[in-house]
Amino acid sequence: MSGNDIVFDFSRAERIGLDEAVFCQMKSATQIDAILDGALQRDAGLLLTRIDPDKLTALSPAHQERIDYCAISLTAFFGPLRPVASRGAVAIVAAGTSDASVAREAARTLRHAGVEASLIVDVGVAGLWRLTERLDEIRHHPVVIAVAGMDAALASVLGGLVSSAMICVPTSVGYGAAESGRTALNAMLVSCAPGLTVCNIDNGYGAACAAMRILATAARMRALG
Amino acid sequence: MSGNDIVFDFSRAERIGLDEAVFCQMKSATQIDAILDGALQRDAGLLLTRIDPDKLTALSPAHQERIDYCAISLTAFFGPLRPVASRGAVAIVAAGTSDASVAREAARTLRHAGVEASLIVDVGVAGLWRLTERLDEIRHHPVVIAVAGMDAALASVLGGLVSSAMICVPTSVGYGAAESGRTALNAMLVSCAPGLTVCNIDNGYGAACAAMRILATAARMRALG
Amino acid sequence: MSGNDIVFDFSRAERIGLDEAVFCQMKSATQIDAILDGALQRDAGLLLTRIDPDKLTALSPAHQERIDYCAISLTAFFGPLRPVASRGAVAIVAAGTSDASVAREAARTLRHAGVEASLIVDVGVAGLWRLTERLDEIRHHPVVIAVAGMDAALASVLGGLVSSAMICVPTSVGYGAAESGRTALNAMLVSCAPGLTVCNIDNGYGAACAAMRILATAARMRALG
Amino acid sequence: MSGNDIVFDFSRAERIGLDEAVFCQMKSATQIDAILDGALQRDAGLLLTRIDPDKLTALSPAHQERIDYCAISLTAFFGPLRPVASRGAVAIVAAGTSDASVAREAARTLRHAGVEASLIVDVGVAGLWRLTERLDEIRHHPVVIAVAGMDAALASVLGGLVSSAMICVPTSVGYGAAESGRTALNAMLVSCAPGLTVCNIDNGYGAACAAMRILATAARMRALG
Amino acid sequence: MSGNDIVFDFSRAERIGLDEAVFCQMKSATQIDAILDGALQRDAGLLLTRIDPDKLTALSPAHQERIDYCAISLTAFFGPLRPVASRGAVAIVAAGTSDASVAREAARTLRHAGVEASLIVDVGVAGLWRLTERLDEIRHHPVVIAVAGMDAALASVLGGLVSSAMICVPTSVGYGAAESGRTALNAMLVSCAPGLTVCNIDNGYGAACAAMRILATAARMRALG
Amino acid sequence: MSGNDIVFDFSRAERIGLDEAVFCQMKSATQIDAILDGALQRDAGLLLTRIDPDKLTALSPAHQERIDYCAISLTAFFGPLRPVASRGAVAIVAAGTSDASVAREAARTLRHAGVEASLIVDVGVAGLWRLTERLDEIRHHPVVIAVAGMDAALASVLGGLVSSAMICVPTSVGYGAAESGRTALNAMLVSCAPGLTVCNIDNGYGAACAAMRILATAARMRALG
Amino acid sequence: MSGNDIVFDFSRAERIGLDEAVFCQMKSATQIDAILDGALQRDAGLLLTRIDPDKLTALSPAHQERIDYCAISLTAFFGPLRPVASRGAVAIVAAGTSDASVAREAARTLRHAGVEASLIVDVGVAGLWRLTERLDEIRHHPVVIAVAGMDAALASVLGGLVSSAMICVPTSVGYGAAESGRTALNAMLVSCAPGLTVCNIDNGYGAACAAMRILATAARMRALG
Amino acid sequence: MSGNDIVFDFSRAERIGLDEAVFCQMKSATQIDAILDGALQRDAGLLLTRIDPDKLTALSPAHQERIDYCAISLTAFFGPLRPVASRGAVAIVAAGTSDASVAREAARTLRHAGVEASLIVDVGVAGLWRLTERLDEIRHHPVVIAVAGMDAALASVLGGLVSSAMICVPTSVGYGAAESGRTALNAMLVSCAPGLTVCNIDNGYGAACAAMRILATAARMRALG
Repeated sequence: MSGNDIVFDFSRAERIGLDEAVFCQMKSATQIDAILDGALQRDAGLLLTRIDPDKLTALSPAHQERIDYCAISLTAFFGPLRPVASRGAVAIVAAGTSDASVAREAARTLRHAGVEASLIVDVGVAGLWRLTERLDEIRHHPVVIAVAGMDAALASVLGGLVSSAMICVPTSVGYGAAESGRTALNAMLVSCAPGLTVCNIDNGYGAACAAMRILATAARMRALG
Repeated sequence: MSGNDIVFDFSRAERIGLDEAVFCQMKSATQIDAILDGALQRDAGLLLTRIDPDKLTALSPAHQERIDYCAISLTAFFGPLRPVASRGAVAIVAAGTSDASVAREAARTLRHAGVEASLIVDVGVAGLWRLTERLDEIRHHPVVIAVAGMDAALASVLGGLVSSAMICVPTSVGYGAAESGRTALNAMLVSCAPGLTVCNIDNGYGAACAAMRILATAARMRALG
Repeated sequence: MSGNDIVFDFSRAERIGLDEAVFCQMKSATQIDAILDGALQRDAGLLLTRIDPDKLTALSPAHQERIDYCAISLTAFFGPLRPVASRGAVAIVAAGTSDASVAREAARTLRHAGVEASLIVDVGVAGLWRLTERLDEIRHHPVVIAVAGMDAALASVLGGLVSSAMICVPTSVGYGAAESGRTALNAMLVSCAPGLTVCNIDNGYGAACAAMRILATAARMRALG
Repeated sequence: MSGNDIVFDFSRAERIGLDEAVFCQMKSATQIDAILDGALQRDAGLLLTRIDPDKLTALSPAHQERIDYCAISLTAFFGPLRPVASRGAVAIVAAGTSDASVAREAARTLRHAGVEASLIVDVGVAGLWRLTERLDEIRHHPVVIAVAGMDAALASVLGGLVSSAMICVPTSVGYGAAESGRTALNAMLVSCAPGLTVCNIDNGYGAACAAMRILATAARMRALG
Repeated sequence: MSGNDIVFDFSRAERIGLDEAVFCQMKSATQIDAILDGALQRDAGLLLTRIDPDKLTALSPAHQERIDYCAISLTAFFGPLRPVASRGAVAIVAAGTSDASVAREAARTLRHAGVEASLIVDVGVAGLWRLTERLDEIRHHPVVIAVAGMDAALASVLGGLVSSAMICVPTSVGYGAAESGRTALNAMLVSCAPGLTVCNIDNGYGAACAAMRILATAARMRALG
Repeated sequence: MSGNDIVFDFSRAERIGLDEAVFCQMKSATQIDAILDGALQRDAGLLLTRIDPDKLTALSPAHQERIDYCAISLTAFFGPLRPVASRGAVAIVAAGTSDASVAREAARTLRHAGVEASLIVDVGVAGLWRLTERLDEIRHHPVVIAVAGMDAALASVLGGLVSSAMICVPTSVGYGAAESGRTALNAMLVSCAPGLTVCNIDNGYGAACAAMRILATAARMRALG
Repeated sequence: MSGNDIVFDFSRAERIGLDEAVFCQMKSATQIDAILDGALQRDAGLLLTRIDPDKLTALSPAHQERIDYCAISLTAFFGPLRPVASRGAVAIVAAGTSDASVAREAARTLRHAGVEASLIVDVGVAGLWRLTERLDEIRHHPVVIAVAGMDAALASVLGGLVSSAMICVPTSVGYGAAESGRTALNAMLVSCAPGLTVCNIDNGYGAACAAMRILATAARMRALG
Repeated sequence: MSGNDIVFDFSRAERIGLDEAVFCQMKSATQIDAILDGALQRDAGLLLTRIDPDKLTALSPAHQERIDYCAISLTAFFGPLRPVASRGAVAIVAAGTSDASVAREAARTLRHAGVEASLIVDVGVAGLWRLTERLDEIRHHPVVIAVAGMDAALASVLGGLVSSAMICVPTSVGYGAAESGRTALNAMLVSCAPGLTVCNIDNGYGAACAAMRILATAARMRALG
């Protein structure tokens, strides 16, 4: 089962409007190199997620040269990057500095698709003034991605204050009763604020895809009049 | 702590664009009657959820007369119903007949807010032809709510076939390893299809609210041009 | 093993400053009657918790006459009630109407010991204005008991706004990912607000006892100068 | 407790038709060497599972020379390999590239017993066309082993499309709500497709053994007429 | 959503060789009656599972007359029953009398499809002689369904003694650490005997379907020669 | 997202009477250095928690010189330390030597705030005499922090013997059924001793903050008379 | 599957020294009557466990006459009772009155086998004096069964004070974090006192059997000299 | 908190007949050295458990010289070893070679106390003949410790065949649904064989202590006549 066995879904964008990204955690450098070769042949840009620095440096040097890497979110842009096509539509709001890697994964996934998101971090509710100071800024964005771990109270507070579409991402930050993010996940699912939706723990990539589905929906409805 | 103690949030719609509904499961008929009195005074319509037939018939007869009840979804419309303002925007797709009560709760919540959703049931993936027959119809809707219990495979299959915004609702249908809906919830959260978002188990109301946030987002973006 | 077998701890108050209450859920009416006989002989007042209306009416009529019952909290005062010795020291803050029975159990336990608590309900964070309107009132109390189910975000928000001693009680309100109160419990334990302490799910009685320990501590430290 | 203490079951094949394999994860190289010595004396071939490269190179050089190793599945054939006695009876279908190691463990276990399976990978349902393209090929095999992690939707979809005997193997691929394979396991157990059977998480070896029991059953029934 | 909404899969047998059964637990008598009407029109026999006596007597009298009911397994045959086409191929072995309802559900499902299984009960391993006495009888069956709750040790012991294809069904018998069948399920999944496969807790119906897949596989391989 | 992005809450003490500490586990040395720079500019002392020796030595040498480090509790005092303002108010009682790091984290957090606690270790109930010998000493403290892992029986025994305010901290000591501290946490929550309150597993810092809230409450009530 | 299908193990006592008891929870009155008929024919006495009053009165009147019933422990002696052969060997110590039904089940199981145990109840550690008062009495018994729910601290305290063989039974008393007895079970398993052994939640019958195995062991060793 | 802070319980043997052992997993070499110094001063022998080779070689060389180490069970005897006082009383039976480290920990703990146990390994029930071959030998021992992981079926089978006192130890062997030993633990707790008692996962030390309590009980009863 060499890298060649991988049936990469280069036509996903046509089908559901979302590029397939390369989730690198379970793949070897050899397997990733094979996928990048395929992309190169098609002249396609690619997003790589969960690629740690060791695996990055194990890729072929020619591939490494074409990569724009972010060590905080462990994401890489391979090949030419699309120009920014949308600004101000998506806010990514993170409760604490420890949630930054997940927030960045979402931001980079959006950027790879041409969407520049606003990143607003360290606004956890334990210091409510940090959040209220920036509330107007957040409200301006029709789509809000809320990233929070531990008690995830940020999601409930935000959900009661803004009318935007809300996508919540629990993070695995914390210890003990945080249960590797399960508590944040459950708290978001049972939030007293109505209409929140939730992604898997630490899944910044998925939240960005969900935001893009909503932006596409909005574009489609605009087209319909 | 009489019904009078309840601080009902009649201004929620102005703040976040969603009416507060009355979740009746933990409330006594006396408490609900008090809320309905308040609504009557303001001439406000109200949605009641999780109200079983026994509690319904325990309400004051005058209130019962103003109620349009649905025994499948355990929801009630109190007072005048808004006209339908939107059609064709939201599809609610349910895997099995057992998921119908949740699907109906979502449909009725949307209807109460003036959104008429398309209800497509019994399209579980064990008989894939049932789903593919109706795929074009589903795709026409910019927002899709997928309702499924047990293995929740419907969500993954749909998510790989449509580009609409996807809101998934796991149901507590099933026994044993279904773990009261936890398996469906987890399966939706880790779906191999990208960009799915998930609500709490059996939370048709929440999924409808999430759909309304997306419709509002689309309207807002259209307004911005 | 008749009721006579029960070794009731009438001297607990002398030892740790807290009366033993009668937890009625697992006891038969016969067993409770036997304990009440013992209390009558000593002329002691008693608090009964988790006694539902059916069990209450199964007690001996003579005992029922000496009882002040609260159907919301399922608590009963048996015999003479102590005068109120303290006011304004403890606030009990509850997120939703569904949390009221637990909040009341705490209030009644305190009242039985001569402490009149302030009860502030329906101030969940989904409508943050409900809470901020009453924040100054809450802050005036040196001890705050926060009662909340589901996401329990109230505890975190309050904990970041008041300097009082904070005792949190998760409730079993909610369904699905609320996991019978486990999510609220965990969220309180991992709250981003520092110095919160937590009691068992639905344990209003225990929270009241914890508050009394703190009041006793304060009295003792005052005595020391 | 030296390697000599191990009571290896060389006669298992006679009893239940399946060779005992050497599960190496919990065994030291010394213990494995002792078992291989015993096999050598009996001139028996052996299958080793879960043997990582480090442990392999710690075996005695003489043993290493007699080993055919597969680094993807961490399996080793020791000694002479049986000729292929059956082809086309078993298909191993895997959802993603990350499931390949488990799929290979199953394939190698079958091969060691003389059964050559067809390996069909990267046919997850998020890109349903990948699966439908190869459906006819899969259907030709009377026994199908379905390997999938995360939401395990592949099992349900396949189960509704093929009439073959189905053995499902959940994998521990994924993070967060994937719960180390528990979600895939549960989803397979509660699949809406009827008649699926399930093995332990990542247990490719067990699935192969189950397939061999079925092939033996078929042979036995053929013999009976 | 009347009974008419149900899209019953009358052609499932052609597709995957298994009739669709009517799982009655979540369906109302009205919904079931509608399905039976449909069956009557097609002159099709139907199997109903998880139908308790109360629901049975709520069906239309005309339908009740066509039903052969088994109160132990809560199954019903509707309409004409196929003749027995196969005998001696499947043994259903149950550990204790408490497991009998699940064993019977499997037997009745097989019988409905024309397969007469041998039922061997009360052979738990705590009295190993009960099992060994009947071992030769069990071994004669090419397919063995093992039904056991609690520690499920029967599955491991049988799996080490017979070469037949083994389908294990954990039951929810027991209390405390039995965890509603989860312990039996897990014990079967991690059995030290190789090649066992497992169905959902209490899923006698599913085990029977799995057995039928294996019998069909055997028939198909016989046809191939 | 450089260290500059962190919005450190230097005014927390004014708001809720507790300094913000720097939880270092999820922060890089660079991020911590940036926070320490900010503290230096304000001439503020800081408490660092969960900082392991490797991360400590990765800080800028100038910062390291200003640090008083404790390797047992992984805490560091940065900058000038407040004088001790309170003695004899808080006892920290730990069941075993393995609980010492958590007990020390609590003691150091209190010391940083000017409160010198009494540390009483290795008084687990398996040797009850160890505890009873020191009971009078413990009782003298109006606030008691009980630190225990595994069965956490120390908390229940102490709670039945002292009238002080009790803050319990479960620890993650132990294996198997200790479930990483979850058993100790649950045992403390359901203690038969009334009025215990509980913090997150291993959260010595949180317990100290809770103790400071109580001391502040006592001071405030003394001021009120 | 009539009662006749049950293969009752009347010879168990000869094999392992313990009579088989009839666990009635999952059996119908008809099935129990059939077993009692069998016992009557052999003139054997029988112990019935978990038989509630409703099931008792559904037995045949002739059988009821031969039954000595205990409503607290839901146990019944059928037929002639053995004389007491041993006294003073086993103490059953229960933490609270709510644990009494389990303690009684153990006492009655022992009594049925001719062993009279000492029953010591309501000695939970929250009032340590209750336990220490009776410690000498407990110590006199070579075998101690400790029954406790919630935090199960009684087991640890006793285990550190007595040298007897200790059998612990967790009970399902309590709510919330008591997790239906799982917390007590885990706390007993990880007790800091050495050499405790544990039975399933609420399993008074099993604890009695374990005590009888120990008494038989002692008798056997005495015989050996 | 230096090693000196440790209050080692050198008088435990007098109190409950069991020496305190040194559980080394959570202790530093410095702390262990301090305890060994104390033992040396009292001329006491000591048992060390869970001490890995790295920690062993970090002890002071003088201490290392006095140590008899076993790398399989990670146990060490420090100082003079008691002579063997008992033989043939305890059998330790282990299901697989992977369970050997736990079985050895039990054997070494017993040996340290002067009890020589018989060690019988690799007798799992998947090859039932391995067990039945040695059954008579096992039956000769009045106390049997059964060590097994995964499905733990050995405990149930043995429990139905021998009348000895049975102490079961689940092990953390296995993966996936083995759940780190939780499945084996639960299966032992709900075994269909009566009178089994269970220790914590991997707790060979605890099982040995339980065996010693039983031997002491037997000796005491013999003394009583």
